[in-house]
Amino acid sequence: VGGQIATLQFEGQNGLLDLGWGHPDPSLLPVRAWNTATTNTLTTFGWKALAYGNAAGPGPLIEWLQTHLEAERESGADGHDFFISAGASHALSLLTSTMTVPGDIVLVDSPTYHFALRIFADAPVELMAAPTDSSGIHPGRTEELLLRLKRDGRRPAMLYIVPTFANPTGRSLSDERRRALVDLSARTHLTIVEDDTYRELAYESPAPESLWHLDRRLGCGAAVLRVGSFSKTVAPGLRLGWINAQRDVVRRLTQIGYVDSGGGVNHSTAMTMATFGRSGAYTEHLSHIRKEYRLRRDTLVAALGEVEDFVTIPKPLGGWFLWLSLPEGVTARTLEARSRRHGVAFAQGSQFFVANAGGHSQIRLSFSLFSPEQLVDAASRLSAALVEAVAG
Amino acid sequence: VGGQIATLQFEGQNGLLDLGWGHPDPSLLPVRAWNTATTNTLTTFGWKALAYGNAAGPGPLIEWLQTHLEAERESGADGHDFFISAGASHALSLLTSTMTVPGDIVLVDSPTYHFALRIFADAPVELMAAPTDSSGIHPGRTEELLLRLKRDGRRPAMLYIVPTFANPTGRSLSDERRRALVDLSARTHLTIVEDDTYRELAYESPAPESLWHLDRRLGCGAAVLRVGSFSKTVAPGLRLGWINAQRDVVRRLTQIGYVDSGGGVNHSTAMTMATFGRSGAYTEHLSHIRKEYRLRRDTLVAALGEVEDFVTIPKPLGGWFLWLSLPEGVTARTLEARSRRHGVAFAQGSQFFVANAGGHSQIRLSFSLFSPEQLVDAASRLSAALVEAVAG
Repeated sequence: VGGQIATLQFEGQNGLLDLGWGHPDPSLLPVRAWNTATTNTLTTFGWKALAYGNAAGPGPLIEWLQTHLEAERESGADGHDFFISAGASHALSLLTSTMTVPGDIVLVDSPTYHFALRIFADAPVELMAAPTDSSGIHPGRTEELLLRLKRDGRRPAMLYIVPTFANPTGRSLSDERRRALVDLSARTHLTIVEDDTYRELAYESPAPESLWHLDRRLGCGAAVLRVGSFSKTVAPGLRLGWINAQRDVVRRLTQIGYVDSGGGVNHSTAMTMATFGRSGAYTEHLSHIRKEYRLRRDTLVAALGEVEDFVTIPKPLGGWFLWLSLPEGVTARTLEARSRRHGVAFAQGSQFFVANAGGHSQIRLSFSLFSPEQLVDAASRLSAALVEAVAG
Repeated sequence: VGGQIATLQFEGQNGLLDLGWGHPDPSLLPVRAWNTATTNTLTTFGWKALAYGNAAGPGPLIEWLQTHLEAERESGADGHDFFISAGASHALSLLTSTMTVPGDIVLVDSPTYHFALRIFADAPVELMAAPTDSSGIHPGRTEELLLRLKRDGRRPAMLYIVPTFANPTGRSLSDERRRALVDLSARTHLTIVEDDTYRELAYESPAPESLWHLDRRLGCGAAVLRVGSFSKTVAPGLRLGWINAQRDVVRRLTQIGYVDSGGGVNHSTAMTMATFGRSGAYTEHLSHIRKEYRLRRDTLVAALGEVEDFVTIPKPLGGWFLWLSLPEGVTARTLEARSRRHGVAFAQGSQFFVANAGGHSQIRLSFSLFSPEQLVDAASRLSAALVEAVAG
């Protein structure tokens, strides 16, 4: 009854190149280096790697992480600003249950990370799109929205944004808007949840300064919570990420019953990550995958050159995604069916909008999962489907 | 600012023998065997141990677990009855958010696992003590309570119980009451959450049949959800446990936004656990720690013999706990202060009752954390404190 249980979330279908998955290329997962880190962890820390851990996460990981972010000019005040989570999406779930009550409004960017929309909806909260223009969230118009809501006696519990190498657009918010959002948070006490998952995957210049660090550096007193992840930089199966937050928020997170009970949410893996970081393996691995993902981005962008008559091909400075606006008259839905016949797939744009209220003629391509050779194939298949679609 | 971040939940205080912690003895954590399992996992499964996993948990772990439980006559229908969680308390948190809405009533045993009370309270739900007598939950009177609640238009969302080698009492519910609870659930559709954390730590005869399996074997059609854990049998730092549930409940769990997003809640560790299980390391380790914890139980029980004039010393057939009723006139609170002066501590009984409405003259001793030699010392210190307390 019921058949075999899968091992993985996505196991691939014969021949289909599905660029819809924001997954790492299996060949870029650090299998050997992680094994070494595990052995060294169990040798160095012994039973302490297996016991009930500190609720906010183990000191060795937090201390390394702080040093690492310090070197990137991205740290906060001190190690008490950290909470180690079981991945970024788990962090979003914990923050939602800690910072909201059912029925609260959560403002979100549009388009934005589709799973975040689902995670918030689970709370449940009322999702509302913050005003945007072609450059992303518009701080001034967001403030007007806050005022209108205030007149109705309502106040959003938080604003969610992926400002750096965003999912799904690959774009980053300008420095000016970052500053304006931090100011807005400081003035109105609006909590901003900054999903910083893609920061480390910068392919040209360093990533823009986070809202979290901007606020700390300038002493604005904003309410920014930053979410980081090891899923893209090390491995998603680890389920490891972190939250940077004001100390009272960290305290509230550690007092969640099951977090306190469990001694943190992923202690043994966090201890191994501490070793992986301290040994230099993280920096080395990151430098390797940055080159590899840059190559994949360049390959996909170049290979899509043949459809530049129909579609503007962006070249994101970091992250894993290309966000394409389809030509007049072509919808993501119709292109999807046609593309699958050509052996390629993508993520339809509408799932990245609250209530699917947009993105019907936009698609997201991930260049993370496949080899450069496969990306060339995928681009050629997609181009063929597009040419057909435009021809009608 | 803020000082060093701790590595562990409990790092010990100089000289104090704190029997309040339900933690494993560090010397019994399988450091070397877990290292071997990790290496073999990364060799056998390669990148599949590091990628996004199946939302319900990876097939290799579920398949081994099913085979293992089958051998213990404790399995369910098939592998689709399993959801791999990040520990038992995480499982309770997920089940609460899945099976209840804020304000629902959750019935609990008294006394019961104190962290479960906190986890339920986080939901938030209304905690209500189910009727008990000296043998534990009373099914008949619980049914009367359900009827009274029904007259008020209310229906408990679930009943929580640790029926086997319970935390904090160490006792197990009788077969007759197990059968009656399963019948009650089948007739009234009351969901029973069976916390089965201590099942594998049986020191004499095999553990009693779980409510989960009883229902399956007899085909009662009850709504039993069974929670299992690797925290006591392997290591708490792993954050790994499981839920046995009807298939539609498993489906709802896998559709939680952050579970679906993350590809399960602890994939890499689950894959290593699969190897640890399949290799025989689990069975070997379990057999070793059963002997060791049995010895610790026997040691503590024997060493407490000198106070048997004041206190009945139980000898639990499994688990980690002794539950003591203090002599007339001695409260847990006053004994606590006195005991600490003698260098020993324990868990006060009241925290195991809803709203602390009981247990004021009861205490829980864990014999899991310390060596037999330390347990002899602890018993002698506690005895001295007790003799003083009785003398007034």
